[in-house]
Amino acid sequence: MHNILTLQQIVDKLGGSLSDEQGNAIRIARVGSLAFAESGAIGFFNNTKYTQQLNETKASAVILKPEHAALTSLPAILTEHPYAYFAKVSQLFQVENEAIKGVHPTASIDSSVTIPSTCSIGAHVSISRNVRLGNHVIIGAGCVLEQGVVVGNHSILEANVTIKHGTQIGQHCHFFSGSVIGNDGFGYAEEVSSNGDQSWVKIPQVGRVIIHDDVDVGSNTTVDRGAIDDTVIEQGVKIDNLVQIAHNCRIGAHTVIAGCVGIAGSAVIGRYCKIGGAAMVLGHLKVADHVTISPGSMITRSIKQAGTYTALMPFQKHDGWLKTAANIRHLGQLTTRIKALENALSALESKK
Amino acid sequence: MHNILTLQQIVDKLGGSLSDEQGNAIRIARVGSLAFAESGAIGFFNNTKYTQQLNETKASAVILKPEHAALTSLPAILTEHPYAYFAKVSQLFQVENEAIKGVHPTASIDSSVTIPSTCSIGAHVSISRNVRLGNHVIIGAGCVLEQGVVVGNHSILEANVTIKHGTQIGQHCHFFSGSVIGNDGFGYAEEVSSNGDQSWVKIPQVGRVIIHDDVDVGSNTTVDRGAIDDTVIEQGVKIDNLVQIAHNCRIGAHTVIAGCVGIAGSAVIGRYCKIGGAAMVLGHLKVADHVTISPGSMITRSIKQAGTYTALMPFQKHDGWLKTAANIRHLGQLTTRIKALENALSALESKK
Amino acid sequence: MHNILTLQQIVDKLGGSLSDEQGNAIRIARVGSLAFAESGAIGFFNNTKYTQQLNETKASAVILKPEHAALTSLPAILTEHPYAYFAKVSQLFQVENEAIKGVHPTASIDSSVTIPSTCSIGAHVSISRNVRLGNHVIIGAGCVLEQGVVVGNHSILEANVTIKHGTQIGQHCHFFSGSVIGNDGFGYAEEVSSNGDQSWVKIPQVGRVIIHDDVDVGSNTTVDRGAIDDTVIEQGVKIDNLVQIAHNCRIGAHTVIAGCVGIAGSAVIGRYCKIGGAAMVLGHLKVADHVTISPGSMITRSIKQAGTYTALMPFQKHDGWLKTAANIRHLGQLTTRIKALENALSALESKK
Repeated sequence: MHNILTLQQIVDKLGGSLSDEQGNAIRIARVGSLAFAESGAIGFFNNTKYTQQLNETKASAVILKPEHAALTSLPAILTEHPYAYFAKVSQLFQVENEAIKGVHPTASIDSSVTIPSTCSIGAHVSISRNVRLGNHVIIGAGCVLEQGVVVGNHSILEANVTIKHGTQIGQHCHFFSGSVIGNDGFGYAEEVSSNGDQSWVKIPQVGRVIIHDDVDVGSNTTVDRGAIDDTVIEQGVKIDNLVQIAHNCRIGAHTVIAGCVGIAGSAVIGRYCKIGGAAMVLGHLKVADHVTISPGSMITRSIKQAGTYTALMPFQKHDGWLKTAANIRHLGQLTTRIKALENALSALESKK
Repeated sequence: MHNILTLQQIVDKLGGSLSDEQGNAIRIARVGSLAFAESGAIGFFNNTKYTQQLNETKASAVILKPEHAALTSLPAILTEHPYAYFAKVSQLFQVENEAIKGVHPTASIDSSVTIPSTCSIGAHVSISRNVRLGNHVIIGAGCVLEQGVVVGNHSILEANVTIKHGTQIGQHCHFFSGSVIGNDGFGYAEEVSSNGDQSWVKIPQVGRVIIHDDVDVGSNTTVDRGAIDDTVIEQGVKIDNLVQIAHNCRIGAHTVIAGCVGIAGSAVIGRYCKIGGAAMVLGHLKVADHVTISPGSMITRSIKQAGTYTALMPFQKHDGWLKTAANIRHLGQLTTRIKALENALSALESKK
Repeated sequence: MHNILTLQQIVDKLGGSLSDEQGNAIRIARVGSLAFAESGAIGFFNNTKYTQQLNETKASAVILKPEHAALTSLPAILTEHPYAYFAKVSQLFQVENEAIKGVHPTASIDSSVTIPSTCSIGAHVSISRNVRLGNHVIIGAGCVLEQGVVVGNHSILEANVTIKHGTQIGQHCHFFSGSVIGNDGFGYAEEVSSNGDQSWVKIPQVGRVIIHDDVDVGSNTTVDRGAIDDTVIEQGVKIDNLVQIAHNCRIGAHTVIAGCVGIAGSAVIGRYCKIGGAAMVLGHLKVADHVTISPGSMITRSIKQAGTYTALMPFQKHDGWLKTAANIRHLGQLTTRIKALENALSALESKK
C-alpha cells in the first residue's frame, strides 16, 4: 500500500512551513516532477528557469523557497532547501521493500552458517560455509555468497549479486543486481616454452576485496580481488552501473564513480573524487583527493593536484569531423610550414 | 531435430524461383555463409565483390538475384532481395526454442500469481507477488521478477534476467541473459554535516521502467528506473549488450543502440536514431529524430537536426600518435606564432 | 586451512637457493607485497627502484636475484626470475577451491545428461538436455547451461555464468561470474511497410560460439553466437571483465583483451595481440598478428602490420582543454591563415 499524507502531516514530520493555511488538508499520494506530475503528487521548484513548468503543472502541491512563494497559487511547503526536502518526502512515499524476514525455503545455506533472525534471505540464494551476516541484512533472490564472506549490519544485496570467497563488506552497503565482487583479477605472466611458443600463465589472485561502510555498487559492476594485497573501497564510495574496478585498486572515501567507468589495476583514487561516465584511469596511477575527471576522459598519468581534468574530442557533423581529422593528421606539416614562414620572413627582414 | 528441406519446398514456402529444374530435389539442412558453408548448407550472394567466394563455396545451393544467375553453376533460388530471403530461410532452419510449456518444479512462484497455461517458466525462477504475465511468455532459468512486474504476450526473458519491482514490459519483447531492468538510478545529494564532513545521501528512486512493444534488450545491459518520473523505452527499440540507460531517459521508437553505449540520466533520444558502439550521450541532452551518432563519439550538447555526428581521434602507429599528441598540446602556441607572422608581414607590407 | 611451509620446504618444491642456512626454518603462511606484507608473509624484489620498500618491509622473507642478495638482511630465496618464482609460491598458498565433487541436491539436471563423478555441480545450477561435461569440470552455483552445450575436461564456470544452447567449450577454460556466452548477436534488417513505416526485423542467429582450450573469460563479459557461421575464440585467449565480443568475431590464439573492450561484429583479431582497456575495434576489420592496441583507442580501419597503434586525446586541466578544443575546431581556419601568409610572403618576395 502507498501512503497518503496531508501537507500538514508532511510538515509535522519534516519541518518547513505551509504557504497558506487552506492547503493543510490537501492529500498527497506520491512525489512527481512538475512537468509530469498528476493530481495527488507533490513536486519541487528550485530555479526560475522552470517557471513555465510551475505555471502549467498538474501537481497538487509544490515545495519551494519562501522567496518564490508568490510565483504560484498552488498549495506549497516553504523551505530553504527544496530539493533536499523533496528527497526526504520521496522517502516517506517510497514503497517499502518487500523483503520478509526469514529464509526462503528454496535458499541453500551451508550448515556452518547461522542466519540472524532479523535477516531476509530470498529464493534460490546460495550461502557457502563460514559466511557471516550481520543484523538486518537483506539478500535478494539468486544471490551467491561464497565461503568466508562477511556482510555487515543493514547491508542489502539485490537479486542475482555474486560475492566471491573471502570478501568483507561493511555496514549499510547496497549492491545492485548482477554486480560481481571479488572475482579474480586479470593477471597473467608471459611464458615462453623451450620451442619458442609463447603463452599466458595465470597468476593466482590471493588478495581479497574489502568494502567499508556506506558503499553502493551498481548493476553489473565488477570489483576484482587483489592479486596479493587487497582491493579496497573506502567508506561512502558510490559506484554506478557497468563499472570495472581492477585488482589492487584503492578507491578513497566518498568518491563517486559514474556508469561505464574503468579503473585499471593498482590505481589509487583519492577521497572526494568525482569520476564522470565512461572515463578511464590507467593502471598504477595515483589520483589526488578532490579531483574531478570529466566524462569520457582517459587519464594516462597520475594527477597530483585537485581540480577538473578533461580529454575529449569535440563532436561535429560528420563532414566537419572528416576535415578536422584530416587537419589533425597534418598537424606536423602545419608546424613545418609555420617554421618555413618564420625563416623566410626573418630572411626578408634581415635583407632590409 | 534440425529440419531438412528441398529447394522446391523452400520456394513453395517463401516464393522466388529456381534457376534450374534439376536442382529442385537438392536437400538443405542449414544456412551458411559462402566462405564457410559446407555441403548441405545454402548461402546467399548479393555483391559481385564476393564472386570469388561464390566460385569457391562448398555450399549446396545459393540465393541470388536473377541478374547474377549466370555467375554460378550451383543450384540457385532467384529473388530480387537475396539477404531478406536468406533471413527468412534462416528462420525455417532455426532450432526451435526448447521451452516446454508449464512451470518448472524448482521455480518459486508467489501464491498471488496466476501463470497462464501457454507460458513457460524455467528452473530456479523467482516470481514475486502481484506479477502479471501475458500469454505465451517464456521465462528462462534463474530469472527474477520482483513484485508488480507486468510482462506482455509473447515476450521472452532469456536465462538469468532480473526485472525489478513495478517494471512494465509490452508484447513481443526480448530480454537477453544478465540484463537488469528497473534497478535504482544513480541519484545522491551532497550533505555536509555540522562538523564540515561531506557525504552522499541516496535519493529514493520511485519511478519505474516502462518498456513498450517489440523492444529487445541485450546481455548484461542495464536500464535504470526513474528517480521520480519513469524511464521509457518506446516501441521497436533494439539495444545491444553492455549498454547503460540511466534514470529518466526516454528512448524514441525504432532507435537502435549498439554495444557498450552509455546514455546518462534524463537524456531524451529521438525516434529512428542509430547510436554506434561505445558512443556516450551526457545527461539532460535532447537528440532529435533520425540522428546517427558514430561509434565511440561523446555527445556533449543537444542535437537539434537529423544527420550524422562524430567525435573521434584518428588512430596512428604509436610513434606518429606521440607527435600528434604533442602537436595538439602546442596548438595554442601555433596560433600565437601565426598571429605573430601576420603582424610581422603586415608591418613589412606597410613599410613599402 | 592455509598451508604453512618453511623456506627449505619451498626451495625443495620449487628450486632456487637459500641466501643463508639460518633462514631455512622460517615459517611462511602466505604471500604478500613488500609494501603491505606482515609477519609470516614472503614477498619478492625485482627492481632497485623499490629498495626502500625492501628496507622497510615487515615480510618474514623475500625472493630476489642473487645480485640483489646483499641489499637485505632478511631470509631470502635466490632465483634469476623472482616474479615467476613468486607466482609459483602463490599457487602453493592458494586457498583450495571449495568445490566438493558431486551434484548439489538443488541442481536441476535434465534426465538426458550424465554427470561424470569427477565433476562438481553447485547449488541451483540448471543443465538442459544433451549437455556433455568432461572430467573434473566445476560448475558454480546458479549457472545455466542450455541444451547441447559441451564443456571440456578441467574447465571451470564460476557462479552465475550463462552458457547458451550449442556452445562448445574446450579444456582448461575458466569463465568468471556473470559472463554470458552464446547470446544472440545484434542483427536486424530494416523493413519498410507498405505505408512507409520503418521498423527492425530480427535476423535469426543460428551460428554458435566455439571456444578452444585454455581460454579465460572475465566477469560480466559477453560473447555472442554467430549469425550464420560461428564466433570463434582460439586457444589461450584471455579476456578480462565487461568485454563485448560481437557475432562472427574470430579472436586469434594467445591474444589478451583487457577490461571494457568492445569488438564489433565479424572483426577478425590476429594471434598474440594485446588490446588495451576500453579500446574498440569496428566491425568487419582485420587486425594482424602481434598488434598492440593502446587503451581507449578506437580502431576504424584494418591493421595489416604488427606494431602498436594509438588514438587518444591527451588529457589536461579543464581550462586548458577548453582552449585545445576551441583550437581543434578552428584548425581549418589556421590552415587557411597559413596559406594566406604563404601567398603574401611569396608576393612580397617576388616584388624584390
